[in-house]
Amino acid sequence: MKRVMLTVAYDGTGYHGWQLQPNVITVESVLNEKLSELFGEEIRVIGASRTDTGVHALGNIAVFDTNARMPAEKVSYALNQRLPEDIRIQKSIEVPIDFHPRHQNSRKTYEYKILNREFPQPIQRLYAHFTYVPLDIERMQKAADYFVGEHDYKSFCSVNTVAETTVRTIYALTVEKQDEMITIRVTGSGFLYNMVRIIAGTLMEVGRGNLEPENIPDILNALDRTKAGPTAPACGLTLVKYQYEDEMLL
Amino acid sequence: MKRVMLTVAYDGTGYHGWQLQPNVITVESVLNEKLSELFGEEIRVIGASRTDTGVHALGNIAVFDTNARMPAEKVSYALNQRLPEDIRIQKSIEVPIDFHPRHQNSRKTYEYKILNREFPQPIQRLYAHFTYVPLDIERMQKAADYFVGEHDYKSFCSVNTVAETTVRTIYALTVEKQDEMITIRVTGSGFLYNMVRIIAGTLMEVGRGNLEPENIPDILNALDRTKAGPTAPACGLTLVKYQYEDEMLL
Repeated sequence: MKRVMLTVAYDGTGYHGWQLQPNVITVESVLNEKLSELFGEEIRVIGASRTDTGVHALGNIAVFDTNARMPAEKVSYALNQRLPEDIRIQKSIEVPIDFHPRHQNSRKTYEYKILNREFPQPIQRLYAHFTYVPLDIERMQKAADYFVGEHDYKSFCSVNTVAETTVRTIYALTVEKQDEMITIRVTGSGFLYNMVRIIAGTLMEVGRGNLEPENIPDILNALDRTKAGPTAPACGLTLVKYQYEDEMLL
Repeated sequence: MKRVMLTVAYDGTGYHGWQLQPNVITVESVLNEKLSELFGEEIRVIGASRTDTGVHALGNIAVFDTNARMPAEKVSYALNQRLPEDIRIQKSIEVPIDFHPRHQNSRKTYEYKILNREFPQPIQRLYAHFTYVPLDIERMQKAADYFVGEHDYKSFCSVNTVAETTVRTIYALTVEKQDEMITIRVTGSGFLYNMVRIIAGTLMEVGRGNLEPENIPDILNALDRTKAGPTAPACGLTLVKYQYEDEMLL
């Protein structure tokens, strides 16, 4: 028996998110089906991040166990032959049998993209949120700085969140603009349900002038979801990478 | 009666190209239908570039005539309300009634994108051609330089081309790489059928070592399609912009 770790990239447009659910197609359901076909045995992956419907990934992580002899490094090539074009394994390696992708110390990086121009651009529509309202990225970066550090993010998670604690650490949060595309990039110890999208929605409120950067500490302290901005649409969000503390696993 | 010029952006993935054809959906057919609905009269656009199935555009050009009172500048907003998400008007202005988008002196710029890495990236798959074969962009740029100037491009157009002359002028042809994305950018007086895709396919042959940069003059002189490289896939190609000599029209 060995445990294999997959780095999984996908276009979330056509999926009801990552997590297995009845009667809909999810990234997890497709991986289970194609891995089971490939190995001729029932395979069940364990995923690191349960991304929502429409959210993309360059490097989500999944592990599975198998008795098959195929070297772990070959799984990426063999599995990609069977997967639909909107899911592609980027890497496959063997990991210790007790490695669990959610129970290891890790840093996650997400990007939220906003196309800020007069009219939508069709070839960007699936991978960036569009707004014609001018956004001031200097104001957004000022607001972003208040998020960095260890905080209770209760104001920035869905009211449906089931989590032991709403304290998380954000290591970096930057707002950059290249041509007409704004990229919010955030790295943290972990993120609560909808947390990145609510941070993005709140930063947009700052960018358009509905909130001041100096309001962010008050919103954090309120521990009240209604004080923060709206949840930004899913299509702008991409899970960029997972980094585990044990560098050997990268 | 007035003539209105539209700058049209589209994701070509879902269309059988620009040109009106029976029984299939094309960008031209959608524009005719939605403009006719909007103005309550039969509208027929004249397009500048008849892009192929799967080719994208940031700025193709179309003109149409109408007796309606709506100011030309408002057409973009009104039409975008009716168009599907994969077509968006970027600009609408009034032009002289005898302005014809294909009979004016113009420069056209296309980009051909190639994602060059070990595995495909799902969120790029619709807008860039993927190859895992390493491409040497210095060799590609050397080859590209031979195309610049006025040449007979008979070797670089589809054998089905119906054109009075196969002589065209390329003003600039560059090959750049940012991270794992190679962009071939070409500006010319006009392009023959499949010309940009055959140039891209030939540059890829140079990049992987199957052709030498110094072979390009011989291929041009041969006036024989079979001497050039393959036609690169449509999805990598985007019509970036049209520039008319009469600067007023920009």
